[in-house]
Amino acid sequence: MSVFTEFDLMKDLHQSGDKIVLLVMDGLGGLPMEAGGMTELETAQTPNLDQLAAQGMTGLSIPIRPGVEPGSGPAHMSLFSYDPLRYEIGRGVLEALGIGFRMGPNDLAARGNFATADADGYITDRRAGRISSEECVRLCEKLQSATGNMFENYQVFVEPVKEHRFVLVLRGEGLGGDLTETDPLETGKRPLPVTDASNSEAGRHSADLLNQWAARARQALADETRANSLNLRGIAKDPGLPLLPEIYGLKAAAIAVYPMYKGVASLVGMEVVDFEGDRPSHEIDALERVWNNYDFFFIHVKKVDSYGEDGNFDAKVHEIEAVDAVIPRILALKPGALIVTGDHSTPAKLRSHSWHPVPTLLWSPRARPDATQSFGESACAGGGLGIFHATQLIPQAMAHAGRIKRFGA
Amino acid sequence: MSVFTEFDLMKDLHQSGDKIVLLVMDGLGGLPMEAGGMTELETAQTPNLDQLAAQGMTGLSIPIRPGVEPGSGPAHMSLFSYDPLRYEIGRGVLEALGIGFRMGPNDLAARGNFATADADGYITDRRAGRISSEECVRLCEKLQSATGNMFENYQVFVEPVKEHRFVLVLRGEGLGGDLTETDPLETGKRPLPVTDASNSEAGRHSADLLNQWAARARQALADETRANSLNLRGIAKDPGLPLLPEIYGLKAAAIAVYPMYKGVASLVGMEVVDFEGDRPSHEIDALERVWNNYDFFFIHVKKVDSYGEDGNFDAKVHEIEAVDAVIPRILALKPGALIVTGDHSTPAKLRSHSWHPVPTLLWSPRARPDATQSFGESACAGGGLGIFHATQLIPQAMAHAGRIKRFGA
Repeated sequence: MSVFTEFDLMKDLHQSGDKIVLLVMDGLGGLPMEAGGMTELETAQTPNLDQLAAQGMTGLSIPIRPGVEPGSGPAHMSLFSYDPLRYEIGRGVLEALGIGFRMGPNDLAARGNFATADADGYITDRRAGRISSEECVRLCEKLQSATGNMFENYQVFVEPVKEHRFVLVLRGEGLGGDLTETDPLETGKRPLPVTDASNSEAGRHSADLLNQWAARARQALADETRANSLNLRGIAKDPGLPLLPEIYGLKAAAIAVYPMYKGVASLVGMEVVDFEGDRPSHEIDALERVWNNYDFFFIHVKKVDSYGEDGNFDAKVHEIEAVDAVIPRILALKPGALIVTGDHSTPAKLRSHSWHPVPTLLWSPRARPDATQSFGESACAGGGLGIFHATQLIPQAMAHAGRIKRFGA
Repeated sequence: MSVFTEFDLMKDLHQSGDKIVLLVMDGLGGLPMEAGGMTELETAQTPNLDQLAAQGMTGLSIPIRPGVEPGSGPAHMSLFSYDPLRYEIGRGVLEALGIGFRMGPNDLAARGNFATADADGYITDRRAGRISSEECVRLCEKLQSATGNMFENYQVFVEPVKEHRFVLVLRGEGLGGDLTETDPLETGKRPLPVTDASNSEAGRHSADLLNQWAARARQALADETRANSLNLRGIAKDPGLPLLPEIYGLKAAAIAVYPMYKGVASLVGMEVVDFEGDRPSHEIDALERVWNNYDFFFIHVKKVDSYGEDGNFDAKVHEIEAVDAVIPRILALKPGALIVTGDHSTPAKLRSHSWHPVPTLLWSPRARPDATQSFGESACAGGGLGIFHATQLIPQAMAHAGRIKRFGA
């Protein structure tokens, strides 16, 4: 009995066809602020999205598993059709992508935390008193100069993130393994050594390099009052994912403002489009410019989520309306399939990501219309896409764009 | 690349939060008695459940797989989030739990059937003419005294169930294996020996003990006119399930009247609450009494199913109404999530369990309302939970009670 995965199926069945647009409003799903009220999306005036919902199909998508609140990284993996429980991206890699660091296949990345230790090296504050981001920049420069050239065969990159957080990347041949973190997770303990749980040559070698680096780095920090120690966490390589262009036979472009989304898109093989500006309309300018060069377009609108996190219901509503306003420009390009969805819910009421499934619409000249007449959470619950795992969206879009051959005779 | 199960995920992500109530009306789902009519639940006057449905979310749950009529044991396993195709409880264990026998980890249990055999041992009636339950008690006492002390290192328990059915339990070290049944499944044949399909030391040893026991027991029954033989079926140990309190970080209590439900709950690690009385109101008395001691409460109402099995539509309706009447007392305790569902359907029209998916509601202050305004099968078919596998309910409740951390960054 052979196991044939969905990716195998898509590799076998894809063919050329129409263009696909995946428009993601980060954190789109919401909640009413009060019982009996409407969600952000239901409150927004969205005549264009409502028309797409009426002509196309809607549903609710589950990013990870029912009840599981998604982080942005795994939620995007799921939208890109990679089950996040199966395809894991290490936290170090996500942190590096988040600051716009372009990971290569020979890179090993770790999240770093500056910490405070006493004279014997026992950690007294795991976040070094949450030093300022400016302080973080200065410390990273100090470490870069103290450790940048310490290895003959490996490059070292120490990059600030914010406050006490930084990224360490080692670049060179033969890195890897399943590497443990140094953070003892409580104060009153010393940092742990990095060890390798994979029991591989690459793992042992990488653990050795990281321990050498940590010792040298702590030495260099010895004269600091607060950030005189550090920990390394989430140590990981580019996971070497199967590539979306190969699975689906699509030349794929990513149009996004924030680094992490560009990074996750590039991990699955999309090309990142450079453009000026940060509004939805600027993203559509870019879309129009590169339309003839690609088959698949991922467009990411971040601010919908940001306003949800702020608890700013009205601002989230207005950002959704700004996206609605650019829909006619997308339709004018005549895509074969247009998905409008979120990566997860971020209800302003909760000021946080949440597990609630995500309103989704799929418009296509080939869509079978359902009863939905507007784009909103309650309406989507009764839509023709049902309540489905987000990994199903790209295969659905492929079909609607005429890009999947018949399976079997 | 690691494969991560849903239980792994929950073990990683659980945190403390609000309390969860899982209220199960056994056999809740129903059918109209006549075309165009209403089901039992739709007929019942349930103002409190209707309000919960309006404020919360509804759906239809699939206990086993679509189209599969559930037994009570696997149906409850599924509600407790254990896929019954993956986590099997032997019939012998279920039978023992059903009569209130507390299984230990060294116990091997079998369902026993008294049978009639001719002078040469050939079975002539596999149910011994369905002897009375009183007769069954007498025969079990006879076997207990004839075989109770036959093994030096093993205790023997012979317990009546009803009519021709009894339970045999051997208790001691080193029992196990994959043991075959003795029942030839047709008359005119002799009972088979127990054999071990696992080819393990424990299996061979257990088969030997059971064959010795069966020979001695049949000897003791030789002077009976009808029940002069017997068969052993469903021979199994406590399956050693992963425990619900460990998976979800929940201290869990079971409030149930019937032994089997207490038994299945205790198999997954719930503590069984003792209380007086057998009405839903008595169960809520118990709930109120232990509310501060636990995080999760499973409440089981049996009679809804019993009336369905009797074909008594009206009595089933009234029992549902009795449950509706106690809902305000549950809400007054301020749970973070309240699930009201059944383990399976038992339509009075069919006088039997059935495969029809089960009306379910999830109420929580954090629920996203759907369009459902009342609690009934038709309304639930369009609810925001969709048509889902019952194993998803506890993860959903965990999320709504604020007990699951974010997955990924």
